[in-house]
Amino acid sequence: MAGTVCVGVDLGGTFIKFGLLDDSRRPSDVFQLPTPQGEGADAVVAQMVKGAKQAVEKAGLTLADVVGVGIGCPGPLSMSKGMVYETPNIPGLKDYPMRDRVAEGVGVPAALENDANAAAYGEFLCGAGADCGSMVLLTLGTGLGGGIVIDGKVLHGSHEIGAELGHMIIVEDGRLCGCGQRGCIEQYCSATFMSRAAQKVLEETDRASSLRDALADKGEINSKDICQARAAGDAFATEVWDEMTRYLAMGCVSYTRILDPDRIVLAGGMTAAGDDLIGPIREYYREYHWKLTEPRTEVVLATLGNDAGVIGAAGVAWQECGQ
Amino acid sequence: MAGTVCVGVDLGGTFIKFGLLDDSRRPSDVFQLPTPQGEGADAVVAQMVKGAKQAVEKAGLTLADVVGVGIGCPGPLSMSKGMVYETPNIPGLKDYPMRDRVAEGVGVPAALENDANAAAYGEFLCGAGADCGSMVLLTLGTGLGGGIVIDGKVLHGSHEIGAELGHMIIVEDGRLCGCGQRGCIEQYCSATFMSRAAQKVLEETDRASSLRDALADKGEINSKDICQARAAGDAFATEVWDEMTRYLAMGCVSYTRILDPDRIVLAGGMTAAGDDLIGPIREYYREYHWKLTEPRTEVVLATLGNDAGVIGAAGVAWQECGQ
Repeated sequence: MAGTVCVGVDLGGTFIKFGLLDDSRRPSDVFQLPTPQGEGADAVVAQMVKGAKQAVEKAGLTLADVVGVGIGCPGPLSMSKGMVYETPNIPGLKDYPMRDRVAEGVGVPAALENDANAAAYGEFLCGAGADCGSMVLLTLGTGLGGGIVIDGKVLHGSHEIGAELGHMIIVEDGRLCGCGQRGCIEQYCSATFMSRAAQKVLEETDRASSLRDALADKGEINSKDICQARAAGDAFATEVWDEMTRYLAMGCVSYTRILDPDRIVLAGGMTAAGDDLIGPIREYYREYHWKLTEPRTEVVLATLGNDAGVIGAAGVAWQECGQ
Repeated sequence: MAGTVCVGVDLGGTFIKFGLLDDSRRPSDVFQLPTPQGEGADAVVAQMVKGAKQAVEKAGLTLADVVGVGIGCPGPLSMSKGMVYETPNIPGLKDYPMRDRVAEGVGVPAALENDANAAAYGEFLCGAGADCGSMVLLTLGTGLGGGIVIDGKVLHGSHEIGAELGHMIIVEDGRLCGCGQRGCIEQYCSATFMSRAAQKVLEETDRASSLRDALADKGEINSKDICQARAAGDAFATEVWDEMTRYLAMGCVSYTRILDPDRIVLAGGMTAAGDDLIGPIREYYREYHWKLTEPRTEVVLATLGNDAGVIGAAGVAWQECGQ
């Protein structure tokens, strides 16, 4: 890797990931260090600084080659102020000036972005959206996270709480969401909430399903169990999976009408299901899509896996620090 | 009016409106000429050119003071190509190079924008969104039109069909929309479709309502009839109006989650209802809004009335033609 680079740092509850992005949008390999546990915010930042410097050394570069460091971090946070207000999985990070602490530690300018937006920007720069002008990312994991890139820029919103795509309401008076709203798409289409709702049905009814074995074994079921039971022909699992893909497609139609992106990119653990996920979503998307024009927004799977956040964080540093 | 200006032209099926916007965002008075009927596209353009020149003369200016002409026009159309593909209310405008014909006729550069986007940009520049960074406009009329301004720029989308806010799906397997989708918010919250659905109930059931008088008199009911009957205590009208404001508030919550604008501005004929409209919408908005943060996006009424489209069209000319 030659020329100037930006460093990407993706802060998670268990690991911190590091990588570089050069001035031709080429990413380096990504590596990770453990997130210090229970030692407070400064220890976390010290680890971030250490890894950022390692990433530069590994590439045979020096800090003089580094334009900036981009940090992807769970929120809520303020990108413009560089402040992390709170991160549920990393105790001690409360009202913390993350951006400036990292900048001081590494000795180069830094930029802060929420992790969902960073992942969206990573896929936009180097992944499934690399040839897009505008793109939407949906991360189907514990919740349903989202990021929006419009004409090459990450949408933050006027109060830096935009792109909360999981909290679009799709069912009137529907399931109560952790956010306090009812009927959020997250409650129907995230891996965790789909599985919980299915488990509740099994626990509260005598509905027959092979999923009862998994439930008895592990005390809970997950999206992989449901996908496998469906593949084996289980009727209940088929219904659950069908509802999830149907709602997700309906949501994608609404995102399309509002934002008209080139692509909607699906990421997160549940995309391991591959064709079992994208196949039915595409069918329902076409069915629910208006008939005034052919669907032109594509719904596709992400390609960067867990590296999207690091790459996107580095990309944000290019936007914020690279003049 | 002094200094340089852009001309705004707002093309409707019955009238064409004209006005100026100067380089300090000050709009002139707006006037209108009739839209030529049945004489083809060139006659329509001739009238647009005539009015644009009149607007300049009225202000005591010459074409040398004009930076560009912005055209707000019903779609579908291509802003980037300056082409009108079709306008249901103006026969003869089919696959027509509107932007270039107007530019040639007036003798200055021109820009084309769809009318809903132009109205949004007008409110953003000089109306209810004048102090906003980002803003959403919802026009509650025959349909439910929309426009989105993000960080000062009108959102067009990758295929120039973005901001179709009326076609966000809010009811699964809901009312069939003219677009071919089911459950579009337009079917529940536009003046026309709300009224049609209410009329259907009266025609197909024996539900008691004072609206039956208006229906007998005129053969149809409109949103004003419903609002008045509600004010007079009619139970059915109250239900209909309540459903409309409830769905609209639910939609506004979803737009907020996705776009996080400073304001959502309501425009169109139905806003004549004033507090009867905005009051219940604000209550439901607060109720449906997540509890993670206080609502920071405001829902307000438009302030420019029918002039928003002309002013916004002139503003688009400033963006496109004023370098």
